[in-house]
Amino acid sequence: MNTLGVALVGHAFMGAVHSQAWRTVGRVFDLPMRPERAVLCGRRKDAAREAAARFGWTESTDDWKSVLVRDDVHLVDICTPGDSHAEIAISALDAGKHVLCEKPLANSVAEAAAMEEAASRARRNGILTMVGFNYRRVPALALARSLIAAGRIGTARHVRASYLQDWLVDPHAPINWRLRAERAGSGALGDLGAHLVDLAHYLLDEDVVSVSGALETFVAERPLPDEPGRAGPVTVDDAALFTARFRGGALGTFEATRYASGRKNGLRIEINGSAGSLAFDFESMNELSFHDAGEPAETAGFRRILATEPGHPYLEAWYPPGHVLGYEHTFVHELRDFVTAIAERGAPAPDFAAGLRVQRVLDAVQRSAAHHSRWMPVSEGES
Amino acid sequence: MNTLGVALVGHAFMGAVHSQAWRTVGRVFDLPMRPERAVLCGRRKDAAREAAARFGWTESTDDWKSVLVRDDVHLVDICTPGDSHAEIAISALDAGKHVLCEKPLANSVAEAAAMEEAASRARRNGILTMVGFNYRRVPALALARSLIAAGRIGTARHVRASYLQDWLVDPHAPINWRLRAERAGSGALGDLGAHLVDLAHYLLDEDVVSVSGALETFVAERPLPDEPGRAGPVTVDDAALFTARFRGGALGTFEATRYASGRKNGLRIEINGSAGSLAFDFESMNELSFHDAGEPAETAGFRRILATEPGHPYLEAWYPPGHVLGYEHTFVHELRDFVTAIAERGAPAPDFAAGLRVQRVLDAVQRSAAHHSRWMPVSEGES
Amino acid sequence: MNTLGVALVGHAFMGAVHSQAWRTVGRVFDLPMRPERAVLCGRRKDAAREAAARFGWTESTDDWKSVLVRDDVHLVDICTPGDSHAEIAISALDAGKHVLCEKPLANSVAEAAAMEEAASRARRNGILTMVGFNYRRVPALALARSLIAAGRIGTARHVRASYLQDWLVDPHAPINWRLRAERAGSGALGDLGAHLVDLAHYLLDEDVVSVSGALETFVAERPLPDEPGRAGPVTVDDAALFTARFRGGALGTFEATRYASGRKNGLRIEINGSAGSLAFDFESMNELSFHDAGEPAETAGFRRILATEPGHPYLEAWYPPGHVLGYEHTFVHELRDFVTAIAERGAPAPDFAAGLRVQRVLDAVQRSAAHHSRWMPVSEGES
Amino acid sequence: MNTLGVALVGHAFMGAVHSQAWRTVGRVFDLPMRPERAVLCGRRKDAAREAAARFGWTESTDDWKSVLVRDDVHLVDICTPGDSHAEIAISALDAGKHVLCEKPLANSVAEAAAMEEAASRARRNGILTMVGFNYRRVPALALARSLIAAGRIGTARHVRASYLQDWLVDPHAPINWRLRAERAGSGALGDLGAHLVDLAHYLLDEDVVSVSGALETFVAERPLPDEPGRAGPVTVDDAALFTARFRGGALGTFEATRYASGRKNGLRIEINGSAGSLAFDFESMNELSFHDAGEPAETAGFRRILATEPGHPYLEAWYPPGHVLGYEHTFVHELRDFVTAIAERGAPAPDFAAGLRVQRVLDAVQRSAAHHSRWMPVSEGES
Repeated sequence: MNTLGVALVGHAFMGAVHSQAWRTVGRVFDLPMRPERAVLCGRRKDAAREAAARFGWTESTDDWKSVLVRDDVHLVDICTPGDSHAEIAISALDAGKHVLCEKPLANSVAEAAAMEEAASRARRNGILTMVGFNYRRVPALALARSLIAAGRIGTARHVRASYLQDWLVDPHAPINWRLRAERAGSGALGDLGAHLVDLAHYLLDEDVVSVSGALETFVAERPLPDEPGRAGPVTVDDAALFTARFRGGALGTFEATRYASGRKNGLRIEINGSAGSLAFDFESMNELSFHDAGEPAETAGFRRILATEPGHPYLEAWYPPGHVLGYEHTFVHELRDFVTAIAERGAPAPDFAAGLRVQRVLDAVQRSAAHHSRWMPVSEGES
Repeated sequence: MNTLGVALVGHAFMGAVHSQAWRTVGRVFDLPMRPERAVLCGRRKDAAREAAARFGWTESTDDWKSVLVRDDVHLVDICTPGDSHAEIAISALDAGKHVLCEKPLANSVAEAAAMEEAASRARRNGILTMVGFNYRRVPALALARSLIAAGRIGTARHVRASYLQDWLVDPHAPINWRLRAERAGSGALGDLGAHLVDLAHYLLDEDVVSVSGALETFVAERPLPDEPGRAGPVTVDDAALFTARFRGGALGTFEATRYASGRKNGLRIEINGSAGSLAFDFESMNELSFHDAGEPAETAGFRRILATEPGHPYLEAWYPPGHVLGYEHTFVHELRDFVTAIAERGAPAPDFAAGLRVQRVLDAVQRSAAHHSRWMPVSEGES
Repeated sequence: MNTLGVALVGHAFMGAVHSQAWRTVGRVFDLPMRPERAVLCGRRKDAAREAAARFGWTESTDDWKSVLVRDDVHLVDICTPGDSHAEIAISALDAGKHVLCEKPLANSVAEAAAMEEAASRARRNGILTMVGFNYRRVPALALARSLIAAGRIGTARHVRASYLQDWLVDPHAPINWRLRAERAGSGALGDLGAHLVDLAHYLLDEDVVSVSGALETFVAERPLPDEPGRAGPVTVDDAALFTARFRGGALGTFEATRYASGRKNGLRIEINGSAGSLAFDFESMNELSFHDAGEPAETAGFRRILATEPGHPYLEAWYPPGHVLGYEHTFVHELRDFVTAIAERGAPAPDFAAGLRVQRVLDAVQRSAAHHSRWMPVSEGES
Repeated sequence: MNTLGVALVGHAFMGAVHSQAWRTVGRVFDLPMRPERAVLCGRRKDAAREAAARFGWTESTDDWKSVLVRDDVHLVDICTPGDSHAEIAISALDAGKHVLCEKPLANSVAEAAAMEEAASRARRNGILTMVGFNYRRVPALALARSLIAAGRIGTARHVRASYLQDWLVDPHAPINWRLRAERAGSGALGDLGAHLVDLAHYLLDEDVVSVSGALETFVAERPLPDEPGRAGPVTVDDAALFTARFRGGALGTFEATRYASGRKNGLRIEINGSAGSLAFDFESMNELSFHDAGEPAETAGFRRILATEPGHPYLEAWYPPGHVLGYEHTFVHELRDFVTAIAERGAPAPDFAAGLRVQRVLDAVQRSAAHHSRWMPVSEGES
C-alpha cells in the first residue's frame, strides 16, 4: 500500500485536532493509502519540536517552505489563521502537493480566487484540494444530505441556520487574533457563518445566489492582553445576520454570533420542504430530527434519528448503535474522504472551488451590510 | 334533548376541576344530553353555598343524601376523599343515580368490591359507573392505546411507569389528610400508583396478574398543622415501587413517589414491544413518542407526535394543530365519554369493575410488601 | 359587584375561544366585576343564534351596530377578520364601549392610526382598549418578561423569533380569506409576525426602531374552494423574514411562515443578553428555558422552568404544580387583565397604541421588502 | 519518563476500543508514564497479527501466558469474555503485572472473590487493578458524583436506573456467546446491570445492601448461527429488574434489557435527593440534568449542563466548550486514571474489590429471583 506523507502547518487548536485525526483514521477505516505524519511546521522551532513529539509527528521545522521540496511529503495540511492560507496553499499546490486547508478558505475573495486558480492548475496534474468544513462530516448531517437528495423533504422552502457561541458575552474578555480584521478577515461571519453557508450548500446541493446582510460589533474596544490597562479596537463583526435566496427558490436566514449566552457550539440548521423537514443542533450532534410529511397526520412527527446505525454515513467503521461519536470524529471522516479521493483520483468536496463560492457569499454579505442591507447578488466570478 | 341533572359531592381541588369540566363539556362537544349543574354538596352549608356560586351550580346543600331522592338529579359526581366513596356511591347507585367517582375507587378491596357489587346490580337497570382515572383521556395516551391496539408495537415486553411528584421533599412540610391511612387508605400507592396501574391496563388492554412490591415511608413524623410544635405520625407510604407481570407476559416496573425533587406531575410511561415503542410524560402532555421498529434502521427513531391533529382522539372539537390542551381538558373528555355512554346506554370505561381490578393490584402490592416483596398473585375475586 | 355586559362580534374560531374564556374567567379568578355574556353578533341571523346557544350568550343579533346603543353592553369584543376592525372598533369607542380587538389591530397603519385616535379620545372618558395579543398571557412568557425586567439577562443582544406553521405546505390547499390581501391585509406577516413583534416589544419593554425585510409568496395560485377546477391568485405573503434593531441596540431576526412542514404552532423566541438567555417554544408552552450566566460555569446551563408554580404569573388561580395549562388559558388571562383594568381604571396592555406600534413595524417591513430590503426606520407617527 | 509496557488480551469490540484509547491517552493528557503498546494476544495467531498491525501494537502472540514473563510488559489489559477473566487476571497479578479487566469482573462471585484475593496479595507489592466500568469516566457523570459529594442533592431518596438496548427485539436474531450462561455468566444482568450497579455505587459513594430481583427470558430458543435450520436454548436472562436498598436508606429501581425497541444504548440514571436531583441519559452523554431545590420555586428547574467546560472533569485536556466528546473518550479517561494511579502509587477505582462488590449485588439479584423475588441481603464476604 502506498504511503501518503503529510506535513502539518500550525499546531494550535486545529493542529491538535488534525493530529488526532491523522493518528486515528488509518486505524479505524480501511484506507487505500497509508498516511504518514512526516513533519510538523510551526513558527518557533522549540514549540514545533514539542508539538511534534506530543502529537506524534516524525519531524518538525520552523520553515514550512522546506517541506515543499521533500519527496516524502505529498499533502500539506494548513491549520494556521486565515491570513497565511493563500501563500502556503498556493506554494504547496505549485509544488505539486495536495492541500487540505482549514476554513474559511481565505480572508478575501481575491485571495480565495487566487487559491482556486492555483488549485485549478494543479488539478490538471491530479493534485487535489479540500477545505476543512468539518461539519459536513457529522454523520447526522451526511444523512440529512442523503435524505434531501432522495427527495424526502421535497422542494426546499426555508433554511434556518444559526451558529451560536458565547465566548464574547463578557465585555471585558480580552482581544485576540480572531478579533483583528488583518488576521481573521472577519469575525463571526467568517469563523462561524462560513460553516453555515458551506453546510447549506452541501445539504441542498445548490448555492446561495443573493443575500441581504447586517453586521454588528457590540463591544467596540476590548482589553489588550499584553498591555495592562489599555484597550484596543475590535475590527471585526461580533455578529452577522443575513437573509439569503437559494438558486432553487428557498429562503434562508443565517445568524452567526459570539454573544449567545449559554450556547457553546450551537450550530443549528433546520430545513423545511414541501414534503418534510430536517433539524439539527451540533450540541446534540448524534441526533437528526426528521419530519416526513407523507406520514398520516395522526402518526407524523419529528423523529429523533440517533445517527449511530451501521447503515449511517461513516458508522460502519465505528461502534455499535448508541455508542455515540464526538466532535473529533468529524475530522477523522474528513481525512478518510480526502485520502480516499487522492488514492482514487476522485473529486473531494468541498474543494477550493466550493470554498471560493462560500467566500463569495460572505463577501456579498459584507457588501450588503455596507449598503443598508440591500440585496446583493453573489458574484459568480469566472469559475 | 334530554337534560342530565348532576349533583357534585365535594368542592375542593377535584370539585373545582370537575365543575370547570361540567361547564365546558356541552359548549365544546356535541353531546346527546344536556348536563345541568343542579346541586353542589359540601360538609359545611356556607362553604357549599359559596362554592356553588363560584363554580356555577344552581343549588347547594350540606346533606348529600338529600340529593338522592331528587328526580332532577341523574348523576352523582363524587369528589371527596377515599374514605367516603363507598357509602356515597352505593347509596347513589341504589337510588338509581349514575355515579362518577374520583380515584382511587376506595381505600380497600372490601369497599371497592361492595361498590362494584352495587354497580353490578344497578347496571341491570341501566345505571352506569365511571372512575375518574382522567389520564386515560389525555389525547396522546388515547392515541397510544389505539396504536397498541392496531399492533403498532407488537407484543409488549416492558412497561416502565413512574409517577413522580415532589411536594414532600421538605421533611418539615406538615401532615395533611393524604398522609393519614384512615382517610386516604394509602399514600403514593393509591394516589399516584393507582393512576399508573389503570393506565397500564388501559394501554395494553390486559391486566396485571402478579406483583412484587415495596413501600417506604422516608419521614415518619411531620408537623401537625393545627398544633404548633407538635408532630404526628405519617401512616401511609411516601413511595411505592413494584414489579408486575401482565397476563400477556410483559414485565412492568412501577414507581410512585412524592419525593422526586423537581418533578412536579411527572406521570411517565414507556412501553417497549416487539415491533415498536411508545413513551409519554405528562409534563409534556401534548406529545407522544413513538418508535416504529418496522422503519428502515437508517430513518427509524422516536418521533414526537404532537397530539393536536383533528384526527387525534377528542381533538376535532378543539383548536387547530399546535394549539395545545392542558390538564383540565382530560376531565372534559371524561365527562364527554360518560355522558355519551349514559345517553347511548353504552359501557363506560373505566367502570367500577375496572376500578376494583386496580384496587386488587394495589392490595397485592401491599401484601407483597408485607411479605418481603414476595410475588403475589392479584386476586381475581368472583367478578 | 358590578356587572360588565359583553357583546361579542364574530363567532368563528376566535369567537369560540373568547366565549370559552368569558365563561371561565369569573369562575377561576376573583374578578372585581362580573362579566355577562350579553349578546353575540354575526353576519347571518341563524348562525348567530345557533352560536349564541352553543357558546352561552344570552342574545344574538345580525346587526352589531344595534348593540352599541344598549346600556347593558359595556364592552365590545371584536373577533372578525382584520378588514372590519376599524369600523367596529371606532364606532364602539365613540359609543362609549370598552373594546377588546383581535390582532392584528388593522390591515393598515392608516386604519390602526384612526383606531388609536378614537381610543385616545375615548380614554379621556375612561374607556379602555386592548389588542388580543394573547401570547403575552402565556405564564412562561410573562415570567420571561419579569426576569428580563429584573435584569436577569442583562443587556439584550439578540432576539431570535420565529412563528412556524405548516398549513400551506400542500400547494393544492385551497384559497381562504387569510390569503386575500383585501380581507387579511397581509399573510404570515400580519397573522404570525404581528404576534412576534408584540411579544418582543413586551418582553424587552422596548420597541423595534428599524427593519430590513423580505416577503415571499411561494405558491402564486391556489384552487378556489367554491369553483371546482379554477384557481385564484394568492395576494398575500406566504412567508415574512425581517431583521430588526431595537431601541436599546439589540438585533432581532424574525421569521413567520406557513410552510414549515411539521411545525404546527411553533412560536419560538430566544433572547440572549449580557447576563443570561431565555428561550421558549409555544408547542411546549408550559416551559421556559433560562440560562443564568452568573452561575459558575461548571453548573450553568439552560434550566427548564415548568411555569406552573403558584408564584408564577396567573398560576395561583389554577392547579397544583405540573398540572399544565393550554392554549385557551391565555385568553382567560387576557380577559382577567382587561376586566381588572376596567374595574380599577388602570392601563391595560397592549392597548391600541401598542397595537399601532406593531402595525408600524409591519408597515416598515413591507416598505423595506418593496425596496430591496433596505433598512427602513419604523415611523413614529404623532402619537 | 518511565514507559509502561502494555499487553492486550482480546481484540474484538473491546480490544479495538481499548487500542484506540491507548493510542490517544498520552497524546492528549500529560501522563506521568509513557504507555507502550507492546503486545496484543489473541486465540488465533493470524488474527492476532492482523489486529496488532491494524491497531498499532508492536508484537502479537496467540499465547497470553508468554507475555507474563516479559520484563517489558507491566500491565495486562483483559478484553476477553467473562469466563476467562479469572484465570488471566490471577496469573497476571501473580506474575506482578498491573491488571485492567473488562466488566463484569467475573461470571460468579467465587471467581470474583478469587480475583480480588489475588489482587489483594498483589497490592502489597504495589500492583494495582482496575475494572472497566467506563461509564464512571463520562464527564457528565463524574460531575454528577462531585455534585452529590458536595451535598448538592442532599440525602438521596431515589435511584432510578435503566440500561436499555434493543438488539434482541427480533426473536429470530441468532444466538451468540452473550446468550450462553457458560461464556457470559448472565445476560442483561451482568452485561448491562453491572454497569448500573457500579455507577450507583460510584455516584452515591455507598453500596447496595439488599435487593429484590426478577429475571426474564422472553425468547427461550434462537437460531444457531452455524447450523442452519436449528435452534439452541438461550441460557441467560433477556431482562433483569431489581429493587434495591442502599446503605444510607435510598431506594433504587434497576432495569436492564435488550428488548427496549428503539433504545440503542440508553443507560439512564436519575437520583432524587432532599435538596435536588440529577438525571442522565448516555444517548446524550455530554449533558447532565441538575435540579437545585434550593433555588426559588419561580426560577427552579432542571438545568441542562453541557459538560464540556474546562472546569469539568477531564475536559481541560480536550476541546473548547460545546465541542462534544463521544463514547470512546470514556476509555481514554479510564486509562489516564489508571496510568496515573500506577505512576503515583495511588488507589485506582473501581478496583477488583469494587468489582467484587458489584458481583455480589448481581448474585443477590439472582438468588432473589430464584426465591420469588424475596429481599436478599448482599453478602459482605470477608473483604
